[in-house]
Amino acid sequence: MNVAVQLIGLDWGTSSLRAYLYDVDGNVVSTRQHAWGIRQLPEGSFSAALRAITTGWPPCIILAAGMVGSRQGWQEVPYVEVPADINVIAKGVMRNNACARHDMWIAPGLLQDSPANVMRGEETQIIGALSQQSEHRANVRFVLPGTHSKWVTVSDGRIAAFDTIMTGEIYALLMKHSILGAGMSVEDPQPVPNDAFLRGLHSARESGAAGAFSRLFSSRALMLNNQLDADDVPEFLSGLLIGEEFRIALVRDGGDSSVPLCLIGDLSLCNRYAVAATYFGYASPAIIGDAAAQGLWQLASAAGLHSHAKTYDFFGIDA
Amino acid sequence: MNVAVQLIGLDWGTSSLRAYLYDVDGNVVSTRQHAWGIRQLPEGSFSAALRAITTGWPPCIILAAGMVGSRQGWQEVPYVEVPADINVIAKGVMRNNACARHDMWIAPGLLQDSPANVMRGEETQIIGALSQQSEHRANVRFVLPGTHSKWVTVSDGRIAAFDTIMTGEIYALLMKHSILGAGMSVEDPQPVPNDAFLRGLHSARESGAAGAFSRLFSSRALMLNNQLDADDVPEFLSGLLIGEEFRIALVRDGGDSSVPLCLIGDLSLCNRYAVAATYFGYASPAIIGDAAAQGLWQLASAAGLHSHAKTYDFFGIDA
Repeated sequence: MNVAVQLIGLDWGTSSLRAYLYDVDGNVVSTRQHAWGIRQLPEGSFSAALRAITTGWPPCIILAAGMVGSRQGWQEVPYVEVPADINVIAKGVMRNNACARHDMWIAPGLLQDSPANVMRGEETQIIGALSQQSEHRANVRFVLPGTHSKWVTVSDGRIAAFDTIMTGEIYALLMKHSILGAGMSVEDPQPVPNDAFLRGLHSARESGAAGAFSRLFSSRALMLNNQLDADDVPEFLSGLLIGEEFRIALVRDGGDSSVPLCLIGDLSLCNRYAVAATYFGYASPAIIGDAAAQGLWQLASAAGLHSHAKTYDFFGIDA
Repeated sequence: MNVAVQLIGLDWGTSSLRAYLYDVDGNVVSTRQHAWGIRQLPEGSFSAALRAITTGWPPCIILAAGMVGSRQGWQEVPYVEVPADINVIAKGVMRNNACARHDMWIAPGLLQDSPANVMRGEETQIIGALSQQSEHRANVRFVLPGTHSKWVTVSDGRIAAFDTIMTGEIYALLMKHSILGAGMSVEDPQPVPNDAFLRGLHSARESGAAGAFSRLFSSRALMLNNQLDADDVPEFLSGLLIGEEFRIALVRDGGDSSVPLCLIGDLSLCNRYAVAATYFGYASPAIIGDAAAQGLWQLASAAGLHSHAKTYDFFGIDA
């Protein structure tokens, strides 16, 4: 392989680091991934992680998005307030002066004043998703399931508002540390949700305005009462908590499930959310696997980084 | 001291063991308490805990209530289904055949089929509270705040229905293990709730049908946005989660806050709930500190244990 490359993009979150090497047209030439999130750095050092993940790559200009720009990150980059489109976000991109070896830039996160909310990294994925099918998705609700699920309203191509629901973190806490998960396997749920997942969705929907928080203990009561197998508790809880996200969404939408949804993220998790979406009356959502690579390229372009990027030859097979 | 005694009552929960020695009129002559809950027994043995907590007491007949009768307890005692009054519950009291040294009996827990729910120990506290002011509380909602808060509807002197909200456990999980509590002190909240607690209550009330689960992440966003001191996060979360209990209660009550409430439990926690009650429009609730001792005596009476209890002389000062 011998291609002209000019940008490295980093999707640098709490628990993982992904690196993309782009050719001059924005095609991803090489991808690397490691568990070097900002909380688990090699030798405790951001520069060590960056050096390791880019070994053998040319010294391109770098754009990073995600928790790397947070207060606990490499260099804090102030939030940009919503509503914001790609150009407003691009104006918030800052040079990382703490990085001596590279010409490195960091994307800002987004802030919503009321209700108070923040994100770092998801905005770049949404930019990527919008660039893929901009017309279709000018007005859409993006759902990014995960530790802190984001529900993001895009209106006329701008990120207008967003919610954060701590579904993934609450699920993990309950399974690892609570009485509900006592003695249970801490494995992730199965890729294909089963009937217990549907029972959890049902319970969340039936909880009405009281909400799934009022039903959490029922998974234990059902089990003690021999109405739920202990093995099915993880799926039931997964359904109850994901169902709660959709119950909340329906409240926000005034009960109107005609809002188009688009899922971004891990495919098996997105599949789970797609089942929940149709269960709650939404149309089957589009699923986008990884939008960060496209988003980083688009954001670098809007921030003018390409204009002073040097071009390098990239030889050889990626390690 | 030289009195005639005839019953030992045990309030034996997950994390603590309380023992009461009664005279022949049901007055508590002596009280002991230890952290020997069923999950932290001395030498891993129920009988060792019982022997230690009753050292020096006469070999009276014993009635125990709480998790000691659960599947993880000393001997499982089947649940009694609601609605149930003291006589129905008393019929479920079983002899503990696993205890060789004592004539020991264990109270059953209560089970609600739909929505699925269980309790063990709280029913005995409610029996005690009802015996104290039976007329006044024949129709009342008892609230027992704690790890798994119980909201118990008493109608015509019977326990008719109940909810469990995992407020205390969720609070502890969030403070100890989640991003919201990262770097925070794990101390319990202050005895007197402050303004941040009221902000949390307010946020729960304002969350409407979406519920406080949709607002959990806001404590972090407010902090990052310099609208909430890091020191105030524990109080804010306490208010948000306790407020969620009252938001749920109002939904269950169809928005009618004229339902009389009565709090049973730890006084500083009950004070916190009393503040929340009035914030959500309920009349200031009565507070009962410890109703278990009275409940055990009443339940022993209804179960006919007194009729074949022997009387012993109890000399000397309690250890």
